[in-house]
Amino acid sequence: MDLRIYLQEKKRLVDYALERYVPSSDGHASTIYKAMRYSLFAGGKRLRPILTIASSEAVGGYTDSVLPFACAIELIHTYSLIHDDLPAMDDDDYRRGNLTNHKVYGEAAAILAGDALLTEAFRLMTDSNTISGIDPNTVLDVINDIADAAGASGMVGGQMVDIELEGKQVDISDVEYIHTHKTGALIASSVRIGARLGGGTEDEVGLLSMYGSVIGLAFQTVDDILNVEGDEALLGKSVGSDANKKKATYPAVLGIDDSKKTADELIDKAIGYLKQFDDKAEPLRMIARYIGKRKA
Amino acid sequence: MDLRIYLQEKKRLVDYALERYVPSSDGHASTIYKAMRYSLFAGGKRLRPILTIASSEAVGGYTDSVLPFACAIELIHTYSLIHDDLPAMDDDDYRRGNLTNHKVYGEAAAILAGDALLTEAFRLMTDSNTISGIDPNTVLDVINDIADAAGASGMVGGQMVDIELEGKQVDISDVEYIHTHKTGALIASSVRIGARLGGGTEDEVGLLSMYGSVIGLAFQTVDDILNVEGDEALLGKSVGSDANKKKATYPAVLGIDDSKKTADELIDKAIGYLKQFDDKAEPLRMIARYIGKRKA
Repeated sequence: MDLRIYLQEKKRLVDYALERYVPSSDGHASTIYKAMRYSLFAGGKRLRPILTIASSEAVGGYTDSVLPFACAIELIHTYSLIHDDLPAMDDDDYRRGNLTNHKVYGEAAAILAGDALLTEAFRLMTDSNTISGIDPNTVLDVINDIADAAGASGMVGGQMVDIELEGKQVDISDVEYIHTHKTGALIASSVRIGARLGGGTEDEVGLLSMYGSVIGLAFQTVDDILNVEGDEALLGKSVGSDANKKKATYPAVLGIDDSKKTADELIDKAIGYLKQFDDKAEPLRMIARYIGKRKA
Repeated sequence: MDLRIYLQEKKRLVDYALERYVPSSDGHASTIYKAMRYSLFAGGKRLRPILTIASSEAVGGYTDSVLPFACAIELIHTYSLIHDDLPAMDDDDYRRGNLTNHKVYGEAAAILAGDALLTEAFRLMTDSNTISGIDPNTVLDVINDIADAAGASGMVGGQMVDIELEGKQVDISDVEYIHTHKTGALIASSVRIGARLGGGTEDEVGLLSMYGSVIGLAFQTVDDILNVEGDEALLGKSVGSDANKKKATYPAVLGIDDSKKTADELIDKAIGYLKQFDDKAEPLRMIARYIGKRKA
């Protein structure tokens, strides 16, 4: 199979679903929706929702029934980028080559657009029109999994520690805490909920969950490496910002060569968790390799 | 019955539950939890969760089964206050007589604490330990109701329009849009979900829903009035800020006397919706009157 075509196809599905789920106006207000959609359609790769779909496929599930949940994760990911870019946080003017949300709509609107995207994720996952036919207890479990991964015990908690440790002396365990929480938790959840919604056995869900945790950590490790030696034109953002801000990263504590070795080992480990899966897990294997080799 | 004692009792229940639901640390990270708890326990009246409980009681429901949802609404209300107070939004240094979250923890932590509280609300409402025994389809409906009231089509959308219309020429329909969305939607949802979780009939849920919408609007109308002629010491915040910022308020478009008349009419209307309810709805009637007469 051709991963490029697979990613393109699934991205199109996700984009089309997001287009339906997030309107441009509610009939009265429109600025909030415009600000939400600006970042939602700013050229994201849709990695997380594609992982949810691929994970569901790996256990024989259907794409249609996971789409609202896959899209909800993309809404959450997008909100986190908008808030991360704010002047009080990373203070970034550009993301994926475009002006960041607050540079276009102002800080207040950007804060609210993030808040609205996060809330919309949970509205979408409980919308009786989109989730009909799925066991309601599974839906509740999946929402809980995502909220756990996104909140104080996951992504937001990781972001908080990341900010707290900026400029401080850190060791490998600090970096692992930040990475597994800030980035890893939501990626792991994307994979896990795909397996659950797809009807995977407990064993399958457990293995895919471990696959997800490991590629989540690998993803952020590669991010750190790209921030040292990536191509600004491909990345659509500036390189070297982590070092300038004295961020807790793998290259900062391990050096660049050992960071690359770590990333490679994580990718191999992730693929190892898929050993007992058949060809339907091939996209997950290829995505793991793609995460290891990505340039943007 | 004595409303003061009723409110005290229910507030204690809510405070105790919140204390259990939101820990001070997850064992590793603690700043995010500290920042969340700072605003969560900063002296809120717990009006929204008490409305959920009172509404459930009005249809013969039990307090215990609504508590996680009542508390989730308080988490959402608290997050909205933290974000509203940010420099990029209302830029307030004090709330209920205490320093605002960002004045104590800094802007980045305040943004994240708000994000975490919002996320935690949805985690709590899907936690199998706290919601066991409740029909999962009802839980999903209730979460959807709250998300709808809190997001772009509700509270956040109202806040956005409120900011957009600051300093602009507005009419009564603009003020109504802002008030029913920014404040009214979540208050209405508090009442409605109480009725649903308490097992109210469709008729009862419909009437309580209308009661909720009307007291939500009344609440914000009184807020506007207090911002003109309230007692700063009782309010714990400064008076006159709406006029300074040229906010879209009832006093600004109707004058103070007609605003008071409007508030009184809304309270009467709200109580009217409770006509067919028995004594169990007495707290709701008294809360409506209390909202009309409140000084803080």
